[in-house]
Amino acid sequence: MLTKNKIKIIRSLANKKERYAQQLFIIEGEKIVQEAIEMEVPISEIVSLADQKEKIQFPHLSIASKQDMERCSALKQSPGVLALVPFLTWKDPDLSSGKYIVLDGIKDPGNLGTIIRIADWFEIDGIFCSNDSVDVYNQKVVQASMGSIFRIPVWYRDLPAFLSTCKLTKMAADMEGEDFASYDFPKNGLIVMGSESHGISDRVKSLTNASITIQRKGKAESLNVSVAAGIICERFSKA
Amino acid sequence: MLTKNKIKIIRSLANKKERYAQQLFIIEGEKIVQEAIEMEVPISEIVSLADQKEKIQFPHLSIASKQDMERCSALKQSPGVLALVPFLTWKDPDLSSGKYIVLDGIKDPGNLGTIIRIADWFEIDGIFCSNDSVDVYNQKVVQASMGSIFRIPVWYRDLPAFLSTCKLTKMAADMEGEDFASYDFPKNGLIVMGSESHGISDRVKSLTNASITIQRKGKAESLNVSVAAGIICERFSKA
Repeated sequence: MLTKNKIKIIRSLANKKERYAQQLFIIEGEKIVQEAIEMEVPISEIVSLADQKEKIQFPHLSIASKQDMERCSALKQSPGVLALVPFLTWKDPDLSSGKYIVLDGIKDPGNLGTIIRIADWFEIDGIFCSNDSVDVYNQKVVQASMGSIFRIPVWYRDLPAFLSTCKLTKMAADMEGEDFASYDFPKNGLIVMGSESHGISDRVKSLTNASITIQRKGKAESLNVSVAAGIICERFSKA
Repeated sequence: MLTKNKIKIIRSLANKKERYAQQLFIIEGEKIVQEAIEMEVPISEIVSLADQKEKIQFPHLSIASKQDMERCSALKQSPGVLALVPFLTWKDPDLSSGKYIVLDGIKDPGNLGTIIRIADWFEIDGIFCSNDSVDVYNQKVVQASMGSIFRIPVWYRDLPAFLSTCKLTKMAADMEGEDFASYDFPKNGLIVMGSESHGISDRVKSLTNASITIQRKGKAESLNVSVAAGIICERFSKA
Protein backbone atom coordinates (compact mmCIF):
# COMPACT_ATOMS: atom_id res chain seq x y z
CA MET A 1 0.00 0.00 0.00
CA LEU A 2 0.94 3.58 -0.52
CA THR A 3 2.20 5.15 2.69
CA LYS A 4 1.27 8.66 3.77
CA ASN A 5 4.89 9.60 3.52
CA LYS A 6 5.09 8.39 -0.09
CA ILE A 7 1.97 10.40 -0.98
CA LYS A 8 3.67 13.43 0.52
CA ILE A 9 6.79 12.84 -1.55
CA ILE A 10 4.83 12.38 -4.77
CA ARG A 11 2.83 15.54 -4.17
CA SER A 12 5.97 17.48 -3.35
CA LEU A 13 7.38 16.66 -6.81
CA ALA A 14 4.91 19.13 -8.33
CA ASN A 15 7.41 21.67 -6.98
CA LYS A 16 10.56 22.25 -9.02
CA LYS A 17 12.81 22.74 -6.00
CA GLU A 18 11.67 19.42 -4.55
CA ARG A 19 12.17 17.65 -7.88
CA TYR A 20 15.73 18.86 -8.04
CA ALA A 21 16.39 18.04 -4.37
CA GLN A 22 15.19 14.48 -4.94
CA GLN A 23 16.24 14.16 -8.60
CA LEU A 24 12.89 12.56 -9.37
CA PHE A 25 9.95 13.37 -11.61
CA ILE A 26 6.49 11.92 -12.22
CA ILE A 27 4.97 10.38 -15.31
CA GLU A 28 1.25 9.65 -15.38
CA GLY A 29 -0.88 7.32 -17.47
CA GLU A 30 -0.61 3.74 -18.65
CA LYS A 31 0.76 4.59 -22.08
CA ILE A 32 3.77 6.65 -20.99
CA VAL A 33 4.49 4.27 -18.07
CA GLN A 34 4.44 1.27 -20.43
CA GLU A 35 6.68 3.15 -22.84
CA ALA A 36 9.16 3.89 -20.04
CA ILE A 37 9.21 0.20 -19.06
CA GLU A 38 9.74 -0.92 -22.66
CA MET A 39 12.52 1.62 -23.17
CA GLU A 40 14.14 0.40 -19.95
CA VAL A 41 14.09 3.85 -18.42
CA PRO A 42 15.23 3.34 -14.80
CA ILE A 43 11.95 3.70 -12.88
CA SER A 44 12.09 4.04 -9.07
CA GLU A 45 8.55 3.00 -8.37
CA ILE A 46 5.13 2.61 -9.93
CA VAL A 47 1.89 3.45 -8.15
CA SER A 48 -1.34 2.01 -9.49
CA LEU A 49 -4.98 1.38 -8.67
CA ALA A 50 -5.61 -2.25 -7.75
CA ASP A 51 -7.64 -2.88 -10.91
CA GLN A 52 -4.88 -1.62 -13.16
CA LYS A 53 -1.95 -3.48 -11.68
CA GLU A 54 -2.42 -6.54 -13.91
CA LYS A 55 -1.51 -4.43 -16.93
CA ILE A 56 1.83 -3.35 -15.49
CA GLN A 57 4.73 -5.78 -15.23
CA PHE A 58 7.08 -4.20 -12.72
CA PRO A 59 8.65 -5.39 -9.45
CA HIS A 60 8.24 -2.17 -7.40
CA LEU A 61 4.52 -1.58 -7.62
CA SER A 62 2.49 0.10 -4.87
CA ILE A 63 -1.27 -0.18 -4.87
CA ALA A 64 -3.19 2.99 -4.08
CA SER A 65 -6.83 3.66 -3.34
CA LYS A 66 -8.75 5.80 -5.82
CA GLN A 67 -8.74 8.64 -3.30
CA ASP A 68 -4.97 8.49 -2.72
CA MET A 69 -4.37 8.24 -6.46
CA GLU A 70 -6.33 11.45 -7.00
CA ARG A 71 -4.32 13.12 -4.26
CA CYS A 72 -1.10 12.16 -6.06
CA SER A 73 -2.21 13.23 -9.52
CA ALA A 74 -1.35 16.52 -11.17
CA LEU A 75 -4.10 15.90 -13.74
CA LYS A 76 -7.76 16.82 -13.37
CA GLN A 77 -8.54 13.15 -13.19
CA SER A 78 -5.92 10.57 -12.29
CA PRO A 79 -5.41 8.01 -15.06
CA GLY A 80 -4.91 5.41 -12.32
CA VAL A 81 -1.20 4.81 -12.72
CA LEU A 82 1.93 6.88 -12.25
CA ALA A 83 5.65 6.31 -11.92
CA LEU A 84 8.50 8.02 -10.11
CA VAL A 85 11.42 8.33 -12.46
CA PRO A 86 14.98 9.49 -11.68
CA PHE A 87 16.15 12.48 -13.72
CA LEU A 88 17.27 11.43 -17.18
CA THR A 89 20.96 11.60 -17.97
CA TRP A 90 22.24 12.63 -21.36
CA LYS A 91 25.73 12.59 -22.69
CA ASP A 92 27.06 16.02 -23.54
CA PRO A 93 26.39 16.51 -27.24
CA ASP A 94 29.07 16.30 -29.86
CA LEU A 95 28.59 19.71 -31.43
CA SER A 96 30.72 19.06 -34.49
CA SER A 97 27.55 18.05 -36.31
CA GLY A 98 23.82 17.50 -35.74
CA LYS A 99 20.52 19.30 -35.79
CA TYR A 100 19.43 21.10 -32.63
CA ILE A 101 16.73 23.45 -31.38
CA VAL A 102 17.64 26.28 -29.01
CA LEU A 103 14.86 27.81 -26.88
CA ASP A 104 15.37 31.25 -25.38
CA GLY A 105 13.05 31.74 -22.40
CA ILE A 106 10.16 29.41 -23.25
CA LYS A 107 7.73 29.59 -20.31
CA ASP A 108 4.71 27.56 -21.37
CA PRO A 109 5.11 23.88 -20.38
CA GLY A 110 2.76 22.76 -23.17
CA ASN A 111 5.01 24.45 -25.71
CA LEU A 112 8.20 22.80 -24.45
CA GLY A 113 6.53 19.38 -24.33
CA THR A 114 5.15 19.82 -27.84
CA ILE A 115 8.55 20.92 -29.16
CA ILE A 116 10.19 17.82 -27.62
CA ARG A 117 7.60 15.73 -29.51
CA ILE A 118 8.34 17.66 -32.74
CA ALA A 119 12.07 17.04 -32.27
CA ASP A 120 11.36 13.34 -31.85
CA TRP A 121 9.17 13.24 -35.00
CA PHE A 122 11.72 15.02 -37.20
CA GLU A 123 14.82 13.39 -35.75
CA ILE A 124 16.29 16.53 -34.23
CA ASP A 125 19.25 15.58 -32.01
CA GLY A 126 18.35 17.60 -28.95
CA ILE A 127 17.14 20.84 -27.41
CA PHE A 128 19.11 23.53 -25.59
CA CYS A 129 17.05 25.70 -23.23
CA SER A 130 18.11 28.95 -21.62
CA ASN A 131 18.36 28.62 -17.85
CA ASP A 132 15.20 30.71 -17.39
CA SER A 133 13.08 28.37 -19.53
CA VAL A 134 10.38 26.17 -18.01
CA ASP A 135 11.68 23.01 -16.33
CA VAL A 136 11.62 19.92 -18.55
CA TYR A 137 10.42 17.81 -15.60
CA ASN A 138 7.38 20.03 -15.00
CA GLN A 139 4.49 17.57 -15.18
CA LYS A 140 2.77 19.47 -18.00
CA VAL A 141 5.95 19.34 -20.08
CA VAL A 142 6.27 15.62 -19.45
CA GLN A 143 2.63 14.95 -20.40
CA ALA A 144 2.75 17.10 -23.55
CA SER A 145 5.94 15.35 -24.68
CA MET A 146 3.97 12.07 -24.95
CA GLY A 147 6.97 9.87 -24.18
CA SER A 148 9.36 11.76 -26.44
CA ILE A 149 11.03 13.08 -23.29
CA PHE A 150 12.78 9.69 -23.02
CA ARG A 151 14.33 10.02 -26.49
CA ILE A 152 15.18 13.70 -26.93
CA PRO A 153 17.92 15.19 -24.75
CA VAL A 154 17.11 18.57 -23.21
CA TRP A 155 20.02 20.56 -21.82
CA TYR A 156 19.92 23.85 -19.89
CA ARG A 157 22.61 26.34 -20.77
CA ASP A 158 23.69 29.92 -20.33
CA LEU A 159 22.78 30.63 -23.95
CA PRO A 160 25.18 33.51 -24.70
CA ALA A 161 28.15 31.51 -23.40
CA PHE A 162 26.99 28.37 -25.21
CA LEU A 163 26.33 30.09 -28.52
CA SER A 164 29.63 31.97 -28.39
CA THR A 165 31.59 28.75 -28.40
CA CYS A 166 29.37 26.60 -30.64
CA LYS A 167 30.65 26.46 -34.22
CA LEU A 168 27.45 25.20 -35.89
CA THR A 169 25.31 27.58 -37.97
CA LYS A 170 22.88 29.40 -35.68
CA MET A 171 19.60 30.28 -37.36
CA ALA A 172 17.29 32.68 -35.52
CA ALA A 173 13.59 32.16 -36.24
CA ASP A 174 12.14 35.63 -36.06
CA MET A 175 9.82 38.10 -37.76
CA GLU A 176 12.29 39.81 -40.08
CA GLY A 177 14.46 37.12 -41.60
CA GLU A 178 14.80 35.48 -44.96
CA ASP A 179 11.82 33.41 -46.11
CA PHE A 180 12.50 29.99 -44.58
CA ALA A 181 10.80 28.31 -47.55
CA SER A 182 13.54 29.43 -49.93
CA TYR A 183 16.35 29.33 -47.34
CA ASP A 184 19.07 26.80 -48.01
CA PHE A 185 19.23 24.99 -44.67
CA PRO A 186 22.63 23.58 -43.73
CA LYS A 187 22.79 19.88 -42.90
CA ASN A 188 23.95 20.72 -39.38
CA GLY A 189 22.90 23.64 -37.24
CA LEU A 190 20.84 25.18 -34.50
CA ILE A 191 17.37 26.68 -34.89
CA VAL A 192 17.01 29.41 -32.24
CA MET A 193 13.46 30.23 -31.14
CA GLY A 194 12.35 32.96 -28.76
CA SER A 195 9.90 33.11 -25.90
CA GLU A 196 6.13 33.38 -26.31
CA SER A 197 5.97 37.03 -25.35
CA HIS A 198 9.40 38.52 -25.97
CA GLY A 199 10.88 36.57 -28.87
CA ILE A 200 14.63 36.04 -28.96
CA SER A 201 16.60 38.29 -26.61
CA ASP A 202 18.93 40.85 -28.24
CA ARG A 203 22.01 39.25 -26.71
CA VAL A 204 21.15 35.79 -28.08
CA LYS A 205 20.07 37.23 -31.44
CA SER A 206 23.45 38.95 -31.82
CA LEU A 207 25.16 35.56 -31.58
CA THR A 208 23.26 33.99 -34.49
CA ASN A 209 24.50 33.77 -38.11
CA ALA A 210 21.24 33.80 -40.02
CA SER A 211 17.66 34.88 -39.60
CA ILE A 212 14.68 33.01 -41.04
CA THR A 213 10.97 33.80 -41.07
CA ILE A 214 7.73 32.01 -41.84
CA GLN A 215 5.99 34.37 -44.23
CA ARG A 216 2.67 35.69 -43.02
CA LYS A 217 -0.18 35.87 -45.52
CA GLY A 218 -3.01 36.88 -43.19
CA LYS A 219 -3.41 39.08 -40.12
CA ALA A 220 -2.42 37.07 -37.04
CA GLU A 221 0.24 38.85 -35.03
CA SER A 222 2.34 35.75 -34.53
CA LEU A 223 2.36 31.99 -34.67
CA ASN A 224 2.51 29.83 -31.57
CA VAL A 225 6.19 28.95 -30.93
CA SER A 226 5.63 25.19 -31.10
CA VAL A 227 3.75 25.54 -34.41
CA ALA A 228 6.61 27.64 -35.79
CA ALA A 229 9.10 25.03 -34.54
CA GLY A 230 7.13 22.31 -36.33
CA ILE A 231 7.01 24.20 -39.62
CA ILE A 232 10.73 25.01 -39.58
CA CYS A 233 11.87 21.58 -38.36
CA GLU A 234 9.93 19.89 -41.17
CA ARG A 235 12.18 21.67 -43.68
CA PHE A 236 15.34 21.52 -41.61
CA SER A 237 14.95 17.76 -41.21
CA LYS A 238 15.28 17.35 -44.97
CA ALA A 239 18.58 19.27 -45.26
CA MET B 1 -19.33 49.35 -9.89
CA LEU B 2 -19.74 45.72 -10.71
CA THR B 3 -22.95 44.32 -9.23
CA LYS B 4 -23.17 40.92 -7.60
CA ASN B 5 -25.57 39.89 -10.28
CA LYS B 6 -23.15 40.82 -13.03
CA ILE B 7 -20.37 38.84 -11.35
CA LYS B 8 -22.73 35.88 -11.29
CA ILE B 9 -23.46 36.27 -14.99
CA ILE B 10 -19.78 36.55 -15.91
CA ARG B 11 -18.89 33.49 -13.88
CA SER B 12 -21.76 31.54 -15.41
CA LEU B 13 -20.29 32.09 -18.88
CA ALA B 14 -17.54 29.59 -18.06
CA ASN B 15 -20.34 27.09 -18.71
CA LYS B 16 -21.13 26.29 -22.33
CA LYS B 17 -24.89 25.96 -21.76
CA GLU B 18 -24.99 29.39 -20.15
CA ARG B 19 -22.96 30.94 -22.95
CA TYR B 20 -25.42 29.63 -25.51
CA ALA B 21 -28.43 30.67 -23.44
CA GLN B 22 -27.07 34.21 -23.21
CA GLN B 23 -25.23 34.25 -26.56
CA LEU B 24 -22.28 35.89 -24.84
CA PHE B 25 -18.63 35.01 -24.30
CA ILE B 26 -15.72 36.48 -22.38
CA ILE B 27 -12.41 37.86 -23.60
CA GLU B 28 -9.70 38.67 -21.05
CA GLY B 29 -6.64 40.90 -21.18
CA GLU B 30 -5.90 44.39 -22.42
CA LYS B 31 -4.48 43.27 -25.78
CA ILE B 32 -7.44 41.23 -26.98
CA VAL B 33 -9.94 43.78 -25.59
CA GLN B 34 -8.15 46.62 -27.41
CA GLU B 35 -8.10 44.53 -30.57
CA ALA B 36 -11.85 43.93 -30.29
CA ILE B 37 -12.46 47.67 -29.87
CA GLU B 38 -10.27 48.53 -32.86
CA MET B 39 -11.96 45.91 -35.02
CA GLU B 40 -15.34 47.30 -33.96
CA VAL B 41 -16.47 43.96 -32.62
CA PRO B 42 -19.81 44.68 -30.90
CA ILE B 43 -18.87 44.51 -27.21
CA SER B 44 -21.64 44.44 -24.60
CA GLU B 45 -19.61 45.61 -21.67
CA ILE B 46 -16.07 45.96 -20.38
CA VAL B 47 -15.06 45.31 -16.79
CA SER B 48 -11.78 46.74 -15.54
CA LEU B 49 -9.75 47.48 -12.45
CA ALA B 50 -9.85 51.18 -11.57
CA ASP B 51 -6.16 51.64 -12.39
CA GLN B 52 -6.57 50.16 -15.87
CA LYS B 53 -9.62 52.07 -17.01
CA GLU B 54 -7.63 54.97 -18.44
CA LYS B 55 -6.20 52.65 -21.08
CA ILE B 56 -9.63 51.60 -22.35
CA GLN B 57 -11.80 53.99 -24.35
CA PHE B 58 -15.27 52.52 -24.16
CA PRO B 59 -18.66 53.87 -23.01
CA HIS B 60 -19.91 50.83 -21.07
CA LEU B 61 -17.14 50.31 -18.58
CA SER B 62 -17.69 48.86 -15.10
CA ILE B 63 -15.02 49.20 -12.48
CA ALA B 64 -14.30 46.15 -10.36
CA SER B 65 -12.25 45.60 -7.21
CA LYS B 66 -9.22 43.35 -7.49
CA GLN B 67 -11.08 40.69 -5.54
CA ASP B 68 -14.15 40.78 -7.80
CA MET B 69 -11.95 40.77 -10.88
CA GLU B 70 -10.26 37.58 -9.67
CA ARG B 71 -13.68 36.04 -9.06
CA CYS B 72 -14.67 36.82 -12.65
CA SER B 73 -11.47 35.57 -14.25
CA ALA B 74 -11.02 32.14 -15.81
CA LEU B 75 -7.25 32.65 -15.74
CA LYS B 76 -4.96 31.84 -12.83
CA GLN B 77 -4.40 35.53 -12.37
CA SER B 78 -6.81 38.10 -13.75
CA PRO B 79 -5.14 40.48 -16.22
CA GLY B 80 -7.36 43.24 -14.82
CA VAL B 81 -9.69 43.73 -17.76
CA LEU B 82 -12.30 41.61 -19.50
CA ALA B 83 -15.16 42.12 -21.92
CA LEU B 84 -18.50 40.47 -22.54
CA VAL B 85 -18.93 39.93 -26.25
CA PRO B 86 -22.03 38.74 -28.14
CA PHE B 87 -21.51 35.60 -30.22
CA LEU B 88 -19.84 36.40 -33.52
CA THR B 89 -21.91 36.07 -36.67
CA TRP B 90 -20.44 34.79 -39.92
CA LYS B 91 -21.98 34.64 -43.32
CA ASP B 92 -22.42 31.12 -44.64
CA PRO B 93 -19.35 30.40 -46.73
CA ASP B 94 -19.40 30.36 -50.50
CA LEU B 95 -18.05 26.89 -51.04
CA SER B 96 -17.38 27.26 -54.75
CA SER B 97 -13.82 28.24 -53.86
CA GLY B 98 -11.60 28.91 -50.85
CA LYS B 99 -9.26 27.21 -48.44
CA TYR B 100 -10.76 25.65 -45.33
CA ILE B 101 -9.80 23.46 -42.39
CA VAL B 102 -12.19 20.77 -41.17
CA LEU B 103 -11.78 19.46 -37.61
CA ASP B 104 -13.29 16.12 -36.67
CA GLY B 105 -13.77 15.90 -32.92
CA ILE B 106 -11.06 18.23 -31.61
CA LYS B 107 -11.41 18.30 -27.82
CA ASP B 108 -8.48 20.34 -26.57
CA PRO B 109 -9.35 24.05 -26.39
CA GLY B 110 -5.70 25.06 -26.78
CA ASN B 111 -5.53 23.13 -30.05
CA LEU B 112 -8.63 24.78 -31.52
CA GLY B 113 -7.45 28.25 -30.48
CA THR B 114 -4.00 27.62 -31.94
CA ILE B 115 -5.51 26.34 -35.21
CA ILE B 116 -7.66 29.50 -35.49
CA ARG B 117 -4.43 31.52 -35.12
CA ILE B 118 -2.73 29.37 -37.79
CA ALA B 119 -5.69 29.91 -40.15
CA ASP B 120 -5.38 33.66 -39.59
CA TRP B 121 -1.62 33.61 -40.26
CA PHE B 122 -1.89 31.61 -43.51
CA GLU B 123 -5.09 33.25 -44.77
CA ILE B 124 -7.29 30.17 -44.52
CA ASP B 125 -10.91 31.20 -45.12
CA GLY B 126 -12.51 29.42 -42.20
CA ILE B 127 -12.83 26.32 -40.05
CA PHE B 128 -15.58 23.71 -39.97
CA CYS B 129 -15.83 21.75 -36.73
CA SER B 130 -17.84 18.60 -36.12
CA ASN B 131 -20.64 19.18 -33.65
CA ASP B 132 -18.81 17.20 -30.97
CA SER B 133 -15.72 19.44 -31.12
CA VAL B 134 -14.80 21.80 -28.29
CA ASP B 135 -16.82 25.04 -28.23
CA VAL B 136 -15.13 27.97 -29.95
CA TYR B 137 -16.29 30.31 -27.16
CA ASN B 138 -14.63 28.22 -24.46
CA GLN B 139 -12.38 30.71 -22.70
CA LYS B 140 -9.24 28.66 -23.34
CA VAL B 141 -10.01 28.58 -27.06
CA VAL B 142 -10.58 32.34 -27.09
CA GLN B 143 -7.31 33.02 -25.23
CA ALA B 144 -5.25 30.68 -27.41
CA SER B 145 -6.65 32.28 -30.57
CA MET B 146 -4.97 35.57 -29.58
CA GLY B 147 -7.58 37.75 -31.30
CA SER B 148 -7.72 35.65 -34.47
CA ILE B 149 -11.17 34.50 -33.33
CA PHE B 150 -12.50 37.85 -34.59
CA ARG B 151 -11.17 37.25 -38.11
CA ILE B 152 -11.57 33.53 -38.79
CA PRO B 153 -15.09 32.12 -39.09
CA VAL B 154 -15.70 28.88 -37.21
CA TRP B 155 -18.81 26.91 -38.16
CA TYR B 156 -20.19 23.76 -36.51
CA ARG B 157 -21.56 21.14 -38.88
CA ASP B 158 -22.71 17.58 -39.08
CA LEU B 159 -19.54 16.65 -40.95
CA PRO B 160 -20.78 13.65 -42.97
CA ALA B 161 -23.75 15.67 -44.28
CA PHE B 162 -21.57 18.70 -44.95
CA LEU B 163 -18.80 16.77 -46.71
CA SER B 164 -21.29 14.82 -48.83
CA THR B 165 -22.58 18.00 -50.42
CA CYS B 166 -19.35 20.04 -50.57
CA LYS B 167 -17.73 19.92 -54.01
CA LEU B 168 -14.25 21.13 -53.02
CA THR B 169 -11.33 18.68 -52.81
CA LYS B 170 -11.29 17.08 -49.37
CA MET B 171 -7.81 16.16 -48.19
CA ALA B 172 -7.55 13.97 -45.10
CA ALA B 173 -4.41 14.52 -43.03
CA ASP B 174 -3.61 11.12 -41.63
CA MET B 175 -0.84 8.62 -41.03
CA GLU B 176 -0.99 6.65 -44.29
CA GLY B 177 -1.39 9.20 -47.06
CA GLU B 178 0.80 10.59 -49.79
CA ASP B 179 3.79 12.65 -48.63
CA PHE B 180 2.32 16.17 -48.26
CA ALA B 181 5.67 17.69 -49.28
CA SER B 182 5.36 16.33 -52.81
CA TYR B 183 1.56 16.53 -52.97
CA ASP B 184 0.19 18.94 -55.54
CA PHE B 185 -2.23 20.97 -53.42
CA PRO B 186 -5.26 22.35 -55.25
CA LYS B 187 -5.86 26.08 -55.02
CA ASN B 188 -9.19 25.45 -53.29
CA GLY B 189 -10.05 22.72 -50.87
CA LEU B 190 -10.56 21.42 -47.36
CA ILE B 191 -7.88 19.99 -45.10
CA VAL B 192 -9.56 17.45 -42.80
CA MET B 193 -7.86 16.78 -39.47
CA GLY B 194 -8.83 14.27 -36.82
CA SER B 195 -9.11 14.37 -33.06
CA GLU B 196 -6.16 14.17 -30.68
CA SER B 197 -6.84 10.59 -29.63
CA HIS B 198 -8.87 8.97 -32.41
CA GLY B 199 -7.80 10.68 -35.63
CA ILE B 200 -10.39 11.11 -38.37
CA SER B 201 -13.51 8.97 -37.95
CA ASP B 202 -14.07 6.26 -40.58
CA ARG B 203 -17.30 7.88 -41.78
CA VAL B 204 -15.61 11.24 -42.36
CA LYS B 205 -12.53 9.61 -43.90
CA SER B 206 -14.69 7.79 -46.43
CA LEU B 207 -15.97 11.15 -47.67
CA THR B 208 -12.54 12.58 -48.50
CA ASN B 209 -10.85 12.53 -51.93
CA ALA B 210 -7.19 12.45 -50.98
CA SER B 211 -4.99 11.49 -48.08
CA ILE B 212 -1.80 13.32 -47.10
CA THR B 213 0.82 12.63 -44.45
CA ILE B 214 3.70 14.46 -42.82
CA GLN B 215 6.56 11.99 -43.11
CA ARG B 216 8.04 10.85 -39.83
CA LYS B 217 11.80 10.59 -39.56
CA GLY B 218 12.13 9.82 -35.85
CA LYS B 219 10.20 7.85 -33.27
CA ALA B 220 7.37 10.04 -31.93
CA GLU B 221 4.03 8.29 -32.26
CA SER B 222 2.27 11.35 -33.61
CA LEU B 223 2.45 15.10 -33.98
CA ASN B 224 0.22 17.47 -32.04
CA VAL B 225 -2.81 18.27 -34.25
CA SER B 226 -2.19 22.03 -34.22
CA VAL B 227 1.46 21.52 -35.20
CA ALA B 228 0.36 19.25 -38.06
CA ALA B 229 -2.21 21.86 -39.12
CA GLY B 230 0.52 24.52 -39.18
CA ILE B 231 2.88 22.41 -41.26
CA ILE B 232 0.18 21.50 -43.82
CA CYS B 233 -1.38 24.98 -44.00
CA GLU B 234 2.02 26.53 -44.71
CA ARG B 235 2.17 24.52 -47.97
CA PHE B 236 -1.54 24.73 -48.74
CA SER B 237 -1.44 28.52 -48.42
CA LYS B 238 0.98 28.68 -51.35
CA ALA B 239 -1.20 26.66 -53.76
